[in-house]
Amino acid sequence: MAYKDEKLNEEKVFKDPVHSYVHVRDRVIWDLIGTREFQRLRRIKQLGTSYLTFHGAEHSRFNHSLGVYEIVRRILENFAHRPNWNQEERLLCLSAALLHDLGHGPFSHSFEKVFNLDHENFTRAIILGDTEVNEILIKVSPDFPQKVADVINKTYKDKLVVSLISSQIDADRMDYLQRDAYFTGVSYGHFDMERILRVMRPYDDQVVVKETGMHAVEDYIMSRYQMYWQVYFHPVTRSAEVILTKILHRAKQLYRENYSFKIEPTPFLSFFNDDVSLEDYIRLDESVVMYYFQMWTEEEDSILSDLAYRFMNRKLFKYIEFNPNSQMSNLMELYQLFKEANLNPEYYLVVDSSSDLPYDFYRPGEEEERLPIHLLLPNGELNELSRQSEIVDAISGKIRTDHKLYFPKDLVEQLPANQKDKIMEILYKQK
Amino acid sequence: MAYKDEKLNEEKVFKDPVHSYVHVRDRVIWDLIGTREFQRLRRIKQLGTSYLTFHGAEHSRFNHSLGVYEIVRRILENFAHRPNWNQEERLLCLSAALLHDLGHGPFSHSFEKVFNLDHENFTRAIILGDTEVNEILIKVSPDFPQKVADVINKTYKDKLVVSLISSQIDADRMDYLQRDAYFTGVSYGHFDMERILRVMRPYDDQVVVKETGMHAVEDYIMSRYQMYWQVYFHPVTRSAEVILTKILHRAKQLYRENYSFKIEPTPFLSFFNDDVSLEDYIRLDESVVMYYFQMWTEEEDSILSDLAYRFMNRKLFKYIEFNPNSQMSNLMELYQLFKEANLNPEYYLVVDSSSDLPYDFYRPGEEEERLPIHLLLPNGELNELSRQSEIVDAISGKIRTDHKLYFPKDLVEQLPANQKDKIMEILYKQK
Amino acid sequence: MAYKDEKLNEEKVFKDPVHSYVHVRDRVIWDLIGTREFQRLRRIKQLGTSYLTFHGAEHSRFNHSLGVYEIVRRILENFAHRPNWNQEERLLCLSAALLHDLGHGPFSHSFEKVFNLDHENFTRAIILGDTEVNEILIKVSPDFPQKVADVINKTYKDKLVVSLISSQIDADRMDYLQRDAYFTGVSYGHFDMERILRVMRPYDDQVVVKETGMHAVEDYIMSRYQMYWQVYFHPVTRSAEVILTKILHRAKQLYRENYSFKIEPTPFLSFFNDDVSLEDYIRLDESVVMYYFQMWTEEEDSILSDLAYRFMNRKLFKYIEFNPNSQMSNLMELYQLFKEANLNPEYYLVVDSSSDLPYDFYRPGEEEERLPIHLLLPNGELNELSRQSEIVDAISGKIRTDHKLYFPKDLVEQLPANQKDKIMEILYKQK
Amino acid sequence: MAYKDEKLNEEKVFKDPVHSYVHVRDRVIWDLIGTREFQRLRRIKQLGTSYLTFHGAEHSRFNHSLGVYEIVRRILENFAHRPNWNQEERLLCLSAALLHDLGHGPFSHSFEKVFNLDHENFTRAIILGDTEVNEILIKVSPDFPQKVADVINKTYKDKLVVSLISSQIDADRMDYLQRDAYFTGVSYGHFDMERILRVMRPYDDQVVVKETGMHAVEDYIMSRYQMYWQVYFHPVTRSAEVILTKILHRAKQLYRENYSFKIEPTPFLSFFNDDVSLEDYIRLDESVVMYYFQMWTEEEDSILSDLAYRFMNRKLFKYIEFNPNSQMSNLMELYQLFKEANLNPEYYLVVDSSSDLPYDFYRPGEEEERLPIHLLLPNGELNELSRQSEIVDAISGKIRTDHKLYFPKDLVEQLPANQKDKIMEILYKQK
Repeated sequence: MAYKDEKLNEEKVFKDPVHSYVHVRDRVIWDLIGTREFQRLRRIKQLGTSYLTFHGAEHSRFNHSLGVYEIVRRILENFAHRPNWNQEERLLCLSAALLHDLGHGPFSHSFEKVFNLDHENFTRAIILGDTEVNEILIKVSPDFPQKVADVINKTYKDKLVVSLISSQIDADRMDYLQRDAYFTGVSYGHFDMERILRVMRPYDDQVVVKETGMHAVEDYIMSRYQMYWQVYFHPVTRSAEVILTKILHRAKQLYRENYSFKIEPTPFLSFFNDDVSLEDYIRLDESVVMYYFQMWTEEEDSILSDLAYRFMNRKLFKYIEFNPNSQMSNLMELYQLFKEANLNPEYYLVVDSSSDLPYDFYRPGEEEERLPIHLLLPNGELNELSRQSEIVDAISGKIRTDHKLYFPKDLVEQLPANQKDKIMEILYKQK
Repeated sequence: MAYKDEKLNEEKVFKDPVHSYVHVRDRVIWDLIGTREFQRLRRIKQLGTSYLTFHGAEHSRFNHSLGVYEIVRRILENFAHRPNWNQEERLLCLSAALLHDLGHGPFSHSFEKVFNLDHENFTRAIILGDTEVNEILIKVSPDFPQKVADVINKTYKDKLVVSLISSQIDADRMDYLQRDAYFTGVSYGHFDMERILRVMRPYDDQVVVKETGMHAVEDYIMSRYQMYWQVYFHPVTRSAEVILTKILHRAKQLYRENYSFKIEPTPFLSFFNDDVSLEDYIRLDESVVMYYFQMWTEEEDSILSDLAYRFMNRKLFKYIEFNPNSQMSNLMELYQLFKEANLNPEYYLVVDSSSDLPYDFYRPGEEEERLPIHLLLPNGELNELSRQSEIVDAISGKIRTDHKLYFPKDLVEQLPANQKDKIMEILYKQK
Repeated sequence: MAYKDEKLNEEKVFKDPVHSYVHVRDRVIWDLIGTREFQRLRRIKQLGTSYLTFHGAEHSRFNHSLGVYEIVRRILENFAHRPNWNQEERLLCLSAALLHDLGHGPFSHSFEKVFNLDHENFTRAIILGDTEVNEILIKVSPDFPQKVADVINKTYKDKLVVSLISSQIDADRMDYLQRDAYFTGVSYGHFDMERILRVMRPYDDQVVVKETGMHAVEDYIMSRYQMYWQVYFHPVTRSAEVILTKILHRAKQLYRENYSFKIEPTPFLSFFNDDVSLEDYIRLDESVVMYYFQMWTEEEDSILSDLAYRFMNRKLFKYIEFNPNSQMSNLMELYQLFKEANLNPEYYLVVDSSSDLPYDFYRPGEEEERLPIHLLLPNGELNELSRQSEIVDAISGKIRTDHKLYFPKDLVEQLPANQKDKIMEILYKQK
Repeated sequence: MAYKDEKLNEEKVFKDPVHSYVHVRDRVIWDLIGTREFQRLRRIKQLGTSYLTFHGAEHSRFNHSLGVYEIVRRILENFAHRPNWNQEERLLCLSAALLHDLGHGPFSHSFEKVFNLDHENFTRAIILGDTEVNEILIKVSPDFPQKVADVINKTYKDKLVVSLISSQIDADRMDYLQRDAYFTGVSYGHFDMERILRVMRPYDDQVVVKETGMHAVEDYIMSRYQMYWQVYFHPVTRSAEVILTKILHRAKQLYRENYSFKIEPTPFLSFFNDDVSLEDYIRLDESVVMYYFQMWTEEEDSILSDLAYRFMNRKLFKYIEFNPNSQMSNLMELYQLFKEANLNPEYYLVVDSSSDLPYDFYRPGEEEERLPIHLLLPNGELNELSRQSEIVDAISGKIRTDHKLYFPKDLVEQLPANQKDKIMEILYKQK
């Protein structure tokens, strides 16, 4: 039997707190899960620094990747005998679902920002490069790795396949909303996925949703909205991320200034040099990062050791609301005052902004053009969601942005009275 | 106001997936949570190697410690105005609850076995030693650290206080059963804690349970039984632990043989030398262990690198049932065959045993003498649980033991046919 | 001890699937629950005809009334020591919460429409009249019944007390959203009540919500919106209600025409005569209604027996969307055609409309003037919810209305071809 | 297309709080649900008088019947392509599952006892008699009604089919344990049904369970045990049932003594005369019973009116433990004292016994011979559950019985002091 058609003698199941069970029958999927590159995802947290805000959020990307796979598996079970659906694409969909986050590193967001990386490039590199994952995919067919990479990259020709993994109501989002809600323990994030899966239909180049499921989709959109503002953009989580980013900045900066580290930061060198090999990237997981951060708490450089200590022991920055339109002069003044007080403002005075677009029906020309969600009417025609749902219409297209200014209040409070008072006045009086 | 009586301006809450919220009002508790030693518990998994069986089980001891604190807090809220209860002990109970697992290291079980350690000693050492935790406790009163240590050590004079933290139905067990069930996703582990908390009563030197709550307690005992056999003693989890233990053995062995490691195992040296300082212990968390394990996958020594690779990438040992009474000769024979095949049986042929006593009414003279659970009858008398509950009576005092033999089936299968066949015959034919 | 201060020897608890437990300590509350008038609520379904759409929705108003009581009890536990709160009002709040729905009869909506009744009048009448409830309330103090009635009637002087029971985020709504979601099994209706209760504050003449709880309140508003359209206004439920209303119409009409019923409709007589005594009202529960409906399935009058059969055996009317602006001429034509076909359009052609206002900040001059929800800012000022929440702003003040035309499709299909075709064409072609 | 093979154009779904959704595709099943006899189950509570103990337990047998159908549907989906399974039996299984409780009347237990009825006979009678249900079944094939009756009656030749509906781990039990737990709100009743369904296998004449699912089955058995003692045999529920039984006794007795009822008890006449026709039986639902009970609260006969008042308004009997071995003489004495006090002991002094056998491996020769649960070992052999599970072994075969003595404490307390004291002494001093 061809490798692509091989089934396990006995179905394997993973107990999953969110989907109850994850089912695997395909030999290919089972083998992919066993690879070193996929197992590595166990050592990368799904929500980065969120565990410092929500102590339950310690779950890994391994968790989430299995979940996305399982949702796609269930969708395809429903699609199996439907018109418009080509069952040949099944294994491709499952593989892409499983592997879509393969290139994520530890605290991706910060690493990407500081070292100019893109985790999507690494996903592709792992799939196409000299890896255990590639070895398995290529056994399916010589062009299979490329196909999987194309689906994840949204360039695959069959857009229906792409939309299962990347659209405004894809398996990725449906898994992470529920999973992140489960592990953080927040009461948002509930929606009736079982119903949504039942009303999804393949339709030309996209997955659409039967009109009767509109309210379940509304609920999903609202859930998404709440999770963004309650969990993903939580200001405490962002404080931890600000510090983490500044640690990486500082270490890179020191390295470039030929600072002599007590212990050679070997795993980071290629990052500092802007020349990251695939193998270096794969080796980097959160254990490595946390190990070095712990080492750095004892470095000579007081900024690096302070920031590392803060991160390891959750001594985070405080924050105030910041309006970039009206308060730039305040920021300038603070910058100057911090400098005078020997609190390097590059590291100790940070504006962080988050913004979200809860649902959009069309964003032409943007890098990540979002596909709208279409409802399938009884007469077979489509209707874009926000034209039918008042609630979605009310929030669609509205970008909401939140700016905060982060700083180490404890250090400010230790400054001499005159310095401290001036700074505190600007920080807290202006409001 | 005395430090011990200080309240936070505003109650702090932690969103907790198991107890909904964890509430903190006492300044002392808040400060303890902020210490470096307590924050370190974020980097130690509650269930050790279980995440390799149940992918959801990635939660930390930090999680659990907050949970135990919260349960005790709720119990004491109910006790506040009851006779037999001395409200003066409140802060002591809360502190002991929060800190009871403070001395756990990464994968404690294996470390304790290989390096002859006892995490309880380290809990005491952290509480009494030169630590941030001690600094806070001593501000409550000079003898407060010792009291906290005594409660955790079960030597505190007021046994009622001790029994909140350590008994057959204590806050520790109630938290971990529910928490571990939640994160693994298994359907065991449910019992009506709200009801149990409502029927708990302080009574001389123990916490007892009103008779009307007997069935809730039965349910708790059964839940405990199921969790042990379904989760804690899961054979796959034990396979990972066997490997982990053998990695530590091997590294220690190599060190003692003056093997030259590619990268100096600095954090392990004092462990290898059987002379672990408190500071070394505190620094050791799972990041450090996983970082070194990853390094060791590339060591020269083939046993160390193989075992480390297995652990990091979940290439675990397989197992068969093993009866130590009837199959010792088989084991001897296998030992010999492994040796001949150059599979060092010290590392590649391991018997692991688990045993559990679901409930016991009396175990006099044993190290960890277990207190029975007493029901409080309407007439004010006590009755030991198993005398009243048929279901508990049926299982009480019965030790159940499970022995398994672990080995790397993949390596055996790669042996020359004659060696392989002999080994496989003994392993699989005997059953 | 004064009756109003009497506590039960031992707290009574009711196991509640929604709030886990309902706790009763006050003798007054316990006695009220035991009254004949309160026990009668067990025989009145909370959701009227919804059980014919959602088979789980068989729960009674007894259920819900205990739930509202419990929520108020928890709120007051939090209020106990707050400024702005007069603990003297506690028993009044609890009693009003428990009794607020006391005057509901079976399928209130239909009965009120057909017989021109108002359940709120009956609530007052039961509280103030010669009843077991009144007997208990008056023991608290002579003016206590009137106070309870005033609170329920929203005329009580202390508007803070009123707002616990009747406002846009009161205990009534919080209970029924969750309870109805639980029993129907829908996935809407979840919101973090525990959080909302924690951030509620007494403030002058209203209950306000701390700003930090805004997102939980948003979630509650969205939940409310979804429950209205997914559950309360479900078109199948409305079909059953249309039929029920028409049964009552028909029976009243027949009575007024001196029709001779096979079995005297004694319990309905005072309703038919527009002269309902309190005692007659109290006796009327769903058993009585269902008993008579079953009897009426065998009445001579074909309209009454047909409608009763339909209700008892769920042979409901079908429906189409109906636009009262553009389709009135169609309706007129159908009316004529039904008449010609001997399908009395008074009973067999019914327009039903539902409309909802998800949240409103101000509706001056309207009968049921809704109080807006206010957020309590850190500086102690208030801000109206929709001014701060984009999502609430987006939906506030928008009345949404849904019109449907109901008819017995089965009967139409049995008409002679020419009649049937004309009717069906108007019904289904027009869309 | 043959009626038996007809599928609905579009699958119908019922939202179900326990199983999330109930799915119907077969025209036959859909038509059966629509029958008058099946819709009647909406008016019969699943748990009889339990709603007076657990206010949430207001769900009907309609609910449960859909649930059993759904579980069997899921089992058969798994069986579809298995050896040992004859797919031809599918519709038979589904129909039998749906209809298995069709003959239940209101408060069956009491009615059966007082009027010597057997609901199973009525189930058969409805299936085979002149009913809407029979009309549908006969369209499948002339012998189909008989087959359905045989399956429910456990006399069908294919015992595998029977065991799906009636065995120690059948769809009936799996539904009611979960459903009754859900609606009462108790925390027992949870077990991993999804897992059990996955490991069920058809095997000759029974359904067996793969050994790997043993712990899930243990959990189910324990759940069953707890539900029996915590819910089904709750002493307050039994108090209500005692009263209900005595109401029926009294009414029958009065009728036989030619007592003249204020309102003719028409629906009960054939019951009083021990000659119940099928049509009379079908008409009797809880509305009828409750309607008459309400009427009877105003009857002349003081026993009947008192008991009816008690039932309607939940003024239940109190109870004490009663040991039939040692306390018979007390009972005799009480009997005499009650008589002397004019409290007719036939109605006011009632011993009620409940007993349960949690699991049995074999009960030969008994009326309802229970099939043991068999585990399917990897080698294809079977092993009886209690031989493998220590916990099941511990409780199997043990009949537990509970006797209680019920009486109206309120009436006793109103007796003259000397009578009252004597009675109270015997009741409460003896313990």
